[in-house]
Amino acid sequence: MSEPAFDPYSRTCPSRGLLNEIGEQWTILVVGALAGGPRRFKDLTERVDGISFKMLTQTLRALERDGLVTRTQYAEIPPRVEYELTATGHDLVGPLRALEDWATSHMAGVLEAHERADRESA
Amino acid sequence: MSEPAFDPYSRTCPSRGLLNEIGEQWTILVVGALAGGPRRFKDLTERVDGISFKMLTQTLRALERDGLVTRTQYAEIPPRVEYELTATGHDLVGPLRALEDWATSHMAGVLEAHERADRESA
Repeated sequence: MSEPAFDPYSRTCPSRGLLNEIGEQWTILVVGALAGGPRRFKDLTERVDGISFKMLTQTLRALERDGLVTRTQYAEIPPRVEYELTATGHDLVGPLRALEDWATSHMAGVLEAHERADRESA
Repeated sequence: MSEPAFDPYSRTCPSRGLLNEIGEQWTILVVGALAGGPRRFKDLTERVDGISFKMLTQTLRALERDGLVTRTQYAEIPPRVEYELTATGHDLVGPLRALEDWATSHMAGVLEAHERADRESA
């Protein structure tokens, strides 16, 4: 057994930056929106309610650069462009969904905790 | 079966903000550092290499406010303060660890993808 090559607890390890990027809310939601198969830009703006064109463009470019998403342009009239998860991107769906599930199932308790904290500090 | 009460794909749902907070790199690493049991502030600064006192304080306060971490002060000389995950916080350990595992196991491929992208755009 060799030592793990990457360790986000070390400040110089690039995995710390990767972790931060994939934990970003837009990344989580866009990867989740692509989990079911290829999607067009417009589909993604509809599924990820409230994302701006600029933020969606930035998020998709970062995911393409990381090798998690491919962008395919079809020679049709009008031209069609589709975004799709790569195998590496698909591997991320499960962990991100677990995070979503945690957030939605514990949201009520977290809101109660906020109210308690606000009462105590009032 | 009732509809899910919270949905991070909706822009007005508080779970979107919660998702963003728990996906933040310092949150991921601090929760991971607390996974094994109670820790003192100093232990955490050592485990999460490079975190500033200010950032660790902010991260712990946010986690306390969310009800994910408790802060206990022991009446000793010198006073001892320990941070510990609540049950809700412990539920988050598995999902965050899955995210860490994804990041460390795919880091090499992501770095290769960056090199490819930089060559293509050069």
